Amino acid sequence: MADLIQPRTLKGFRDYLPELMIPREQLLDKARRVYRSYGFAPIDTPALEYTEILMGKGGEESDRLIYRFTDHGGRDVALRFDLTIPFARFAAQYIGQLGTPFKRYHMGPVWRGENTAHGRYREFWQCDFDTIGTTSNAADIETALVIHDLMVALGFERFQVRLNNRLVLNGLLEELGLAGQAVKLLRVLDKLPKIGREKVRDEMTTLAEGESGPVVFHDRAERILALAETEGTNADILDRLQRDFGSNARAAEGIARLRELLDVAKTAGIPEERLRLDLSIARGLDYYTGTIYETFLLDKPDIGSVCSGGRYDNLAGLYTKQKLPGVGASLGLDRLLAAMEEMNLLPKASTPAPVLVVQFSPVHLGEYQKMARALRAEGIGVEVFPEPKKVGQQLKYADQRGFKVALIAGSDEFAEGVWNVKDLKSATQREKVPAAQVAEVIREILQER
Amino acid sequence: MADLIQPRTLKGFRDYLPELMIPREQLLDKARRVYRSYGFAPIDTPALEYTEILMGKGGEESDRLIYRFTDHGGRDVALRFDLTIPFARFAAQYIGQLGTPFKRYHMGPVWRGENTAHGRYREFWQCDFDTIGTTSNAADIETALVIHDLMVALGFERFQVRLNNRLVLNGLLEELGLAGQAVKLLRVLDKLPKIGREKVRDEMTTLAEGESGPVVFHDRAERILALAETEGTNADILDRLQRDFGSNARAAEGIARLRELLDVAKTAGIPEERLRLDLSIARGLDYYTGTIYETFLLDKPDIGSVCSGGRYDNLAGLYTKQKLPGVGASLGLDRLLAAMEEMNLLPKASTPAPVLVVQFSPVHLGEYQKMARALRAEGIGVEVFPEPKKVGQQLKYADQRGFKVALIAGSDEFAEGVWNVKDLKSATQREKVPAAQVAEVIREILQER
Repeated sequence: MADLIQPRTLKGFRDYLPELMIPREQLLDKARRVYRSYGFAPIDTPALEYTEILMGKGGEESDRLIYRFTDHGGRDVALRFDLTIPFARFAAQYIGQLGTPFKRYHMGPVWRGENTAHGRYREFWQCDFDTIGTTSNAADIETALVIHDLMVALGFERFQVRLNNRLVLNGLLEELGLAGQAVKLLRVLDKLPKIGREKVRDEMTTLAEGESGPVVFHDRAERILALAETEGTNADILDRLQRDFGSNARAAEGIARLRELLDVAKTAGIPEERLRLDLSIARGLDYYTGTIYETFLLDKPDIGSVCSGGRYDNLAGLYTKQKLPGVGASLGLDRLLAAMEEMNLLPKASTPAPVLVVQFSPVHLGEYQKMARALRAEGIGVEVFPEPKKVGQQLKYADQRGFKVALIAGSDEFAEGVWNVKDLKSATQREKVPAAQVAEVIREILQER
Repeated sequence: MADLIQPRTLKGFRDYLPELMIPREQLLDKARRVYRSYGFAPIDTPALEYTEILMGKGGEESDRLIYRFTDHGGRDVALRFDLTIPFARFAAQYIGQLGTPFKRYHMGPVWRGENTAHGRYREFWQCDFDTIGTTSNAADIETALVIHDLMVALGFERFQVRLNNRLVLNGLLEELGLAGQAVKLLRVLDKLPKIGREKVRDEMTTLAEGESGPVVFHDRAERILALAETEGTNADILDRLQRDFGSNARAAEGIARLRELLDVAKTAGIPEERLRLDLSIARGLDYYTGTIYETFLLDKPDIGSVCSGGRYDNLAGLYTKQKLPGVGASLGLDRLLAAMEEMNLLPKASTPAPVLVVQFSPVHLGEYQKMARALRAEGIGVEVFPEPKKVGQQLKYADQRGFKVALIAGSDEFAEGVWNVKDLKSATQREKVPAAQVAEVIREILQER
């Protein structure tokens, strides 16, 4: 016999066993339903792209993370590291055919050769949705509604969607004569929760002093920080913004957009406490230009935002001259799944079917499958045990996998046309249930949970 | 402005636009439901594996097709080219934890650097299901039922699952003194529909003459071909097999298994014409050892089998000493999708939501989203148009995307608490429908289709 090959996965990659894959599929399915319910249409793009497409923006960060190689045809290719760049390429390629506005969702794996020290994986799923081809605030508002409904659909009640608008921050920077340094300053500001106000202030000052542009003196850094730290109810914050920055045209537009977002969301029935203005969120990414979204679990804030996004002026400028403004967000599915695992929110079953038909007597296999198929036709998942092992062994298997109900019948029962229906949780048995009533009895048992 | 990067995909790769991705997601969802309804549990494995895992079996074929490279950590890695080998590795790694029998499905993309001449793609989805850890014929039988129910769920009525058993073929070869050459001979036999009986006979003869083993004379090749070409009803074929080969123990077991499969399927309610014995199907793959499955669309037989599989003695011999027998099959999802596209079986809509709320008046955006959310809560997908364009333009958009219903309301309607509901296909409008009845009216319109 040849030497065995050690079965193992690559560092930073993981297998999904049924106990984890069942809830992952449920999350994907729920996210899909919410996106679809808002009229977002699915698309898919290849995992592999020309490297020049993915690396269009260059940058050391991507260089370090990207899985890149030469294919059989001598092409320089790479695995996508997010779904945004492939979407930009896709939009540039087909927008004439797709028309605008165009709303899409895209769910799939991405690959990044990241440092695995902090439990990060090198392959993980993203679930993005975007509306492109419109600058209308209606799309920004809808994005907040989608995030809200998504979190509820995924089973969360205690969460907050935090909102900001880059226009407000940019308005202040303009007032302070710092408009030209906005991108760098916002990147520093974005670190506020991580490194604290002192360090942010120092970095801002150093940054400005090292540049040829206007110097950020401490008092200007303080004003930026004061804005970011504005606290109070949504109404308080809006009033204060209006008072302090309403005269700046850019800021005024941002304020008006945030106000309309909150008004519409309220009318549409979103609980007010779930949408919170938070002027400290800036998102490090420099392509955001308007509304910004982050989403936190109140019982697990330390994992960071689980659904983030924003408005951008131009999605696909690298690939087309047609300007494509839009707004969207990305659900960090695997991060959320890991959090739910830690919070014990995941069911323990490793079977997707609730019912096991015990194979009591192999000559009745046809009858077992007949009943199983009848139940499946009514939407009840049923596994027929493949071997005529002892009933006790089959019930042990049922218990280990997390089945809820076992059906047992032998020649006596078939002669009478009845089944024994065992509730595996309470370990009670309903005996001699007529075949026609088995589905109903199973539903009763399943509903009691 | 920097030069634009040409937006394009790699040769052999394709994007899925909504019109194609909507039905693809539906097929995936339907397949998932069927697998789950039989108790198959989902798993996932990484797209990238150590090359030694994937190339365990060596072979020029894989060498030529595999996407292989060195990662940042200097590892020799490759993209999976099927879901079987990753499953074998997975099973070897976790079988102690998973227990047996273990039933899994796995749906995901695979990558092969194939010649793209015949419309083949280099990235495509497979949907596999397998039962491992049992030699019981109950699992073989269930595999046929799953394939049947899968095809029905995917919307087909005119299809045939063709069945064979390697044991019958091997029994004959044993009788003919050709057992040692079974793998090679079956590979040749598998070409029968492609190259015809003359060439198969010639290849068999040449093959045997060139080997040190026993020579295949024409009459022995004729006997193999005669077996493969056996025609008649399932009962006829079984009777003839029993008469001609029943004395060979191996063949007798194969015959008994096929007979039981057909009996159980009949009792379980599978229409008899959908399961057909076909002794010519051999499947080129040498790891099959028992039941073999192929599935053909009667209206599109030229695309070949859309769901194929079989029983094997040992799944994971490369990675573990534990013998893991099993049975399973793989749905060629993208091939099926391409066939459905050609057969005009795909809906033309590029929106997953049936209802468009026209944005008649922006001040009522909150009301539009309120109604939309109420309908979504009842399971009706609703898009709110993001811009207050002319109603005609919005209706044109609705028509182009394939929306079924438009909802229109302005200040007059909101004052009365009513909506105008437009059936976009018949271009008729139900006016002044009370808000509480809108969902019901929409359901009526959608059901008329």
